[in-house]
Amino acid sequence: MAPVTTQGEEMYALVERLYPLCRSITGDGVRATLDIVGEYIPLDVHEVPTGTQVLDWTVPQEWNIRDAYIADTAGNRVVDFAASSLHVLGYSVPVAATMPLSELRPHLHTLPDRPSWVPYRTSYYKPEWGFCLAQDTLDAMPDGEYEVRIDSTLADGHLTYAEHVVPGQVADEVIVSCHVCHPALANDNMAGVAVATFLARALAEETPYYTYRFIFAPGTIGAITWLARNAERVDRVKHGLVLACAGDPGQLTYKRSRRGDAEIDRVLQYVLTVSERPHQVNEFTPYGYDERQYCSPGFNLGVGSLTRTPYAGYPEYHTSADNLDFVSPEAMADTLAVCREAFAVLDRNRQYVNLSPYGEPQLGRRGLYDALGGRSDTKQAQMAMLWVLSLSDGEHDLLEVAERSGLPFDTVAGAADALHEAGLVKT
Amino acid sequence: MAPVTTQGEEMYALVERLYPLCRSITGDGVRATLDIVGEYIPLDVHEVPTGTQVLDWTVPQEWNIRDAYIADTAGNRVVDFAASSLHVLGYSVPVAATMPLSELRPHLHTLPDRPSWVPYRTSYYKPEWGFCLAQDTLDAMPDGEYEVRIDSTLADGHLTYAEHVVPGQVADEVIVSCHVCHPALANDNMAGVAVATFLARALAEETPYYTYRFIFAPGTIGAITWLARNAERVDRVKHGLVLACAGDPGQLTYKRSRRGDAEIDRVLQYVLTVSERPHQVNEFTPYGYDERQYCSPGFNLGVGSLTRTPYAGYPEYHTSADNLDFVSPEAMADTLAVCREAFAVLDRNRQYVNLSPYGEPQLGRRGLYDALGGRSDTKQAQMAMLWVLSLSDGEHDLLEVAERSGLPFDTVAGAADALHEAGLVKT
Amino acid sequence: MAPVTTQGEEMYALVERLYPLCRSITGDGVRATLDIVGEYIPLDVHEVPTGTQVLDWTVPQEWNIRDAYIADTAGNRVVDFAASSLHVLGYSVPVAATMPLSELRPHLHTLPDRPSWVPYRTSYYKPEWGFCLAQDTLDAMPDGEYEVRIDSTLADGHLTYAEHVVPGQVADEVIVSCHVCHPALANDNMAGVAVATFLARALAEETPYYTYRFIFAPGTIGAITWLARNAERVDRVKHGLVLACAGDPGQLTYKRSRRGDAEIDRVLQYVLTVSERPHQVNEFTPYGYDERQYCSPGFNLGVGSLTRTPYAGYPEYHTSADNLDFVSPEAMADTLAVCREAFAVLDRNRQYVNLSPYGEPQLGRRGLYDALGGRSDTKQAQMAMLWVLSLSDGEHDLLEVAERSGLPFDTVAGAADALHEAGLVKT
Repeated sequence: MAPVTTQGEEMYALVERLYPLCRSITGDGVRATLDIVGEYIPLDVHEVPTGTQVLDWTVPQEWNIRDAYIADTAGNRVVDFAASSLHVLGYSVPVAATMPLSELRPHLHTLPDRPSWVPYRTSYYKPEWGFCLAQDTLDAMPDGEYEVRIDSTLADGHLTYAEHVVPGQVADEVIVSCHVCHPALANDNMAGVAVATFLARALAEETPYYTYRFIFAPGTIGAITWLARNAERVDRVKHGLVLACAGDPGQLTYKRSRRGDAEIDRVLQYVLTVSERPHQVNEFTPYGYDERQYCSPGFNLGVGSLTRTPYAGYPEYHTSADNLDFVSPEAMADTLAVCREAFAVLDRNRQYVNLSPYGEPQLGRRGLYDALGGRSDTKQAQMAMLWVLSLSDGEHDLLEVAERSGLPFDTVAGAADALHEAGLVKT
Repeated sequence: MAPVTTQGEEMYALVERLYPLCRSITGDGVRATLDIVGEYIPLDVHEVPTGTQVLDWTVPQEWNIRDAYIADTAGNRVVDFAASSLHVLGYSVPVAATMPLSELRPHLHTLPDRPSWVPYRTSYYKPEWGFCLAQDTLDAMPDGEYEVRIDSTLADGHLTYAEHVVPGQVADEVIVSCHVCHPALANDNMAGVAVATFLARALAEETPYYTYRFIFAPGTIGAITWLARNAERVDRVKHGLVLACAGDPGQLTYKRSRRGDAEIDRVLQYVLTVSERPHQVNEFTPYGYDERQYCSPGFNLGVGSLTRTPYAGYPEYHTSADNLDFVSPEAMADTLAVCREAFAVLDRNRQYVNLSPYGEPQLGRRGLYDALGGRSDTKQAQMAMLWVLSLSDGEHDLLEVAERSGLPFDTVAGAADALHEAGLVKT
Repeated sequence: MAPVTTQGEEMYALVERLYPLCRSITGDGVRATLDIVGEYIPLDVHEVPTGTQVLDWTVPQEWNIRDAYIADTAGNRVVDFAASSLHVLGYSVPVAATMPLSELRPHLHTLPDRPSWVPYRTSYYKPEWGFCLAQDTLDAMPDGEYEVRIDSTLADGHLTYAEHVVPGQVADEVIVSCHVCHPALANDNMAGVAVATFLARALAEETPYYTYRFIFAPGTIGAITWLARNAERVDRVKHGLVLACAGDPGQLTYKRSRRGDAEIDRVLQYVLTVSERPHQVNEFTPYGYDERQYCSPGFNLGVGSLTRTPYAGYPEYHTSADNLDFVSPEAMADTLAVCREAFAVLDRNRQYVNLSPYGEPQLGRRGLYDALGGRSDTKQAQMAMLWVLSLSDGEHDLLEVAERSGLPFDTVAGAADALHEAGLVKT
């Protein structure tokens, strides 16, 4: 695989391509996004018709938009969708009218505290139209008449999401989910999409233990749709990670699953700790990204969420300042690296049963001392074997062996492999 | 209801009336006490005959006293029961004799370290007579003959206790218990009696969820008698509080039930913490007030004890210095306020079950966002609904939701009510 | 029993006798060691033939040695087994040859960092011969020819271990195990052997509750042999302690059993804490002394390990500097004292069941207040009775009563005895 810096740059290049597209929870922007991702990894794209009942929800009408602007009497576009897809309130119904500024005002969304930034706003489930613009722009608009036009369609169609599967040795699945519904926001969530894409490629380099399923879906309704259509599969989902905000300059943040002590929680905690990266681990809250759905009490999956600065935790969040300058190749490469380290542990983590549990088995007789004698980590490897034997009672996994022994997980897993080959432990 | 300061003064006035009566574990002093309390709240008074077997104990003979004194040869009463009911050893057998001071001395109880204070002493189960007096008084008594007289009766009769019930919506009960056996001691426990009385009145203002039973009984033998006569009812007692030492200037102290994590323990811990009152929470010990009986291992009820300065924790404890100057309207009002806050939480605290546990239910469709839109705490209310939905799996109650979310309990309970009305949760 | 200082000196005198013997995992040195210990306490000596299958291991050939040396061409013994049994690599096969230093070197073991110390080395399971010597000695050896001779025998024979039993009131056993396989090392483990010996004598002074079994066996293979031959008995072993490194100047160290919260772990933690000795309590690791075997997951016995400075924790470890100067009568007396304190607690620690669990039983009626009235610890004794009654529900033992009440264990155990005599509790 390419060196890390190159990967960071490749991911950044992908974000650059995806960034300008006008995404929403349905529509052609999502399809265009998935087309581009599909150039990197093969995708299985699903189209779910408007009106489909999905759990407690119904798939809404599909929204598409061609053009939108506010023009002054001279015909100058003061606010123009062509400049940024953020300028239109998501799911705006069509409008074509001329009206005085006073009448237009209730439809204009700004950030008075950040006068040069454009906010991101939507109204998915209440028919509404509106524009998002900089407070500075609004302040510069003289009273008078304005031509207002939103050339959008809200009609029966489909909700679109995609899956990519990296087949593993077992049918048990790990899901990696990221939302693809936000328009021109770089960190939230094209960075997450890019990291997920390159993570999928990395995992495919050798057959992993688990089957890894990547889900690219609109937030909330997309995850709900996936869960509704995969009721049978959910039992096979053993672990999962929601990836978002993967490229900002902040430190890594892991948010635990609702279970709080799921294996994925322990793995992320471990990897972040031993890697000595600055990081934070937060308890589950029922707010944030699609872990809300995966961890709803009926499913209660072992799904955590990995971000850099978490949901709504930075001023640029849901504004035009979450742009291509806000994310970096280095940050995305770091997020990808942590994902790979975590899945490397998760994938090898098992509970073993010591088949010779009465007293220590004589390792020397089996060449388990000699065999390792020439290696510089001989002593650690021997200690790791003793630890694995001691804790292989069907109640502790290798991660716990690593934690309690203070030995590197790789050494512990290697010791387990050696003991397994010698017939001293079984899974 | 009357403002807090007025309530404090009303409670103080009640203490003033109760204070001088000569109470013991049986006798007319207890009856007179209950008569006065009965002017505030209706009481169900029980008379249990001497000799009745109650658990491991037997109801003792009833003790009454009319007069008692030590007089010098000139006929001056050096120690006089009429001045304070503390002057006679509780349960003193009658005596009428003249004897030299040297013979009298073994019957005299003083506090050499607090020479101006009169101690409180009893001998319920061993026939004995005696006087309690200030060391200063004793020091001033010249050698010589003294007339000693205790005009008491120890005879078959009854043990007296009373109950007051505030009916609730369910038969499950909360008991509030306070001892009524101490003579002229203000904090221990006429302040507790007064707070319990006004708490009962406050609870009756609207029908509470639980049925609240107030028990006014002599310490130890009274609680044991109540438990013995209510074997059937005990299963219905879900929570309880022993109220004592409710009026001194010290900070509030909650002593956990023997269970340590009973709901009442969690509620008091929570209320004391969020109210930001200085306070202390102590672990259970098998010594103190009648929580000893309610929490004996056979019953093991979820009954804690609320005091200000705890049992035996102040120098005035069990002395004449525990008088009307030692308690204040403000302290009693504060104790009452904490009780009301705690029972307000306890009364609304429930475990709910999310009826739409697969993914989040669509709250907007049910008007649960709009309905709350106009309120200033909208965002908190919405977060509270998500938290209640997330934790409503039959394993967490609203108090835990409040603790984990950091949201006010009232907001959480209101969210649960809204979800309940919308049919999204059930109890 | 003799005063502590005398005991310390007696133990030291025993160490002095045992120290010079050439012990290994088999052979006459072990037998001589057990003969001397047998002068203090009667021993049941077991001889297990070479080739016997013991768990995953096989009893090896027996090793004996009569003489060994390296002599220069002038016949001077540069290295002489007669000077110290450490000089020969344990289990050296016989050799008689003359060779240049260059050829001899690979068979010489030194400690370059501690040039005046002789290391302790063995090769039990791989046929090898060698000498251990000071680096200084090696440095002074000129090139040239040397006569090398090891007059040893490696032949079918026996593995020798011994047991001493102090009969108790019940068949449930406590084992105390110490290894007897190290040659001239004082702290590791003749000090442990001496403390175990005197502990056995002390326990025999009165019939203890448990049956105490002392095991004197070679490390690893000895414990494995004992476990293999006592499969039936193992179920009766309720607690145990591996004693080693009992005489060095360091502070006491207790290493928990694999269970981590076995009763022996709680007892040692308690005794070390309340005695206010400087000490350390370590978590279990699957490395160290024979707790490795007793705590292997199949047996998982409640066996901890008591040392002063732990296994491999001091520079003198496994060198000639672990000599008679390194251990002291005071340190051994202190280790013995802790063992006696711990077993005094363990032996009286029980779970009781309160036979009068509904309310408090009336202690006064049974003379339990009066009976104790004359003692200076009356108040503590009464509190202890209330605590024992409160926690006697079959889920807490007396040690937990002591910990939670803050009362001395002896007071608690005395209260339990009094309540037991009064028929208020049963075991």
